[in-house]
Amino acid sequence: MKGKLYGVGVGPGDPELLTLQAVRIIRESDVILVPGKVPRESVAWQIARAGIPELEEKETVGVEMPMTREKERLQEAHRKARERICGILDEGKRAAFLTLGDPTVYSTYLYVHRQVQEAGYETQIVNGIPSFLAAAARLNEGLVENTGQLHVIPAPDREALELPGTRVFMKAGKQTGKLKKLLEEADVSARVVERCGMEGERVWRSAKEMPAELSYYSLVIVKDREEK
Amino acid sequence: MKGKLYGVGVGPGDPELLTLQAVRIIRESDVILVPGKVPRESVAWQIARAGIPELEEKETVGVEMPMTREKERLQEAHRKARERICGILDEGKRAAFLTLGDPTVYSTYLYVHRQVQEAGYETQIVNGIPSFLAAAARLNEGLVENTGQLHVIPAPDREALELPGTRVFMKAGKQTGKLKKLLEEADVSARVVERCGMEGERVWRSAKEMPAELSYYSLVIVKDREEK
Repeated sequence: MKGKLYGVGVGPGDPELLTLQAVRIIRESDVILVPGKVPRESVAWQIARAGIPELEEKETVGVEMPMTREKERLQEAHRKARERICGILDEGKRAAFLTLGDPTVYSTYLYVHRQVQEAGYETQIVNGIPSFLAAAARLNEGLVENTGQLHVIPAPDREALELPGTRVFMKAGKQTGKLKKLLEEADVSARVVERCGMEGERVWRSAKEMPAELSYYSLVIVKDREEK
Repeated sequence: MKGKLYGVGVGPGDPELLTLQAVRIIRESDVILVPGKVPRESVAWQIARAGIPELEEKETVGVEMPMTREKERLQEAHRKARERICGILDEGKRAAFLTLGDPTVYSTYLYVHRQVQEAGYETQIVNGIPSFLAAAARLNEGLVENTGQLHVIPAPDREALELPGTRVFMKAGKQTGKLKKLLEEADVSARVVERCGMEGERVWRSAKEMPAELSYYSLVIVKDREEK
């Protein structure tokens, strides 16, 4: 009998944000798949390890998912990842691929998911808390209410900034300077959370205060002024 | 010493989607607050009870939060809720207010949170999995990838339907007919999930197939055609 692939969201940083389902699936898995060459260096592995100590004892395989836009290199990496994972599933093993936040929102896992699915294997997505929800909780305030809309935008975007309701700008990283400029020009009320739930977490409560450089694990929440 | 109020998200239905933090906070709380007159009839209580059997033994208080747009009735209900909750906190007790999904996304808890916060008490938000993420996992597919945008819209809205990326229409409920018509006219590819993770869960994979009446616990996911 063939095995099964689980895409498991481990949340953005705090191991207590793991769901009961994520903990169970990780514990029941024969093999843990982790993005990157050295599994123990991966942030997703470290979060899961902090919540589930026995992860140390599990067979763990690093799956290289290069952060590149070079199509050929990416396709080659995805092909290799698929072969490796399908090989594990052919042995009848259950494999849990760990991914930051939630697997359905901007995760590199989704490539693997589709490829393994298309190859005819059973797959399942196990939800995790996405960073933008954890950031709102960290700020101790709501994200969206009543008839408000919620927009999650993966890069600085002037047009998106004009949308009604709450706008979340994700993964600012290298484009932080550009985003800061946009926010200041639009004179909006902004909250910034860097490395939410991780070591070195920082919070700013206006676009003016936010630095022009932030890590990849940063996001900005912009709300309509009339809302609290 | 005064107590503390926790707003605890219990996820959309499956008790396994409770986070470790939610389970711990509920276990450590002296009083469980639940929206509605009869606590045990509340969906949030039932989800938590299925994951944490000892909930049965806890002091449980129903907090009436009428689903009304009548401002006076609403304000009166909020005032009563605040007084009741502050009274509990004045006894030095920890209170966990259970709420469906995540407390930061369209939850009635946020009113209580602000009022109790403004009255000078300590508060904390404990994240839960929101229904739109659980619905994507249920469909076994991603919600948003790469440079795509994600828009969460709380009511049928033609303009929002034209936004780029993934659009999630929440709480269709009584307006399902209107939403179905909009989706059919726009000829978009839609997925519909009703009562995700609850008893009576149903899924449809096109606007044409979706019924013109759906429960309050329904949502529709619309993706750009070029995306899978």
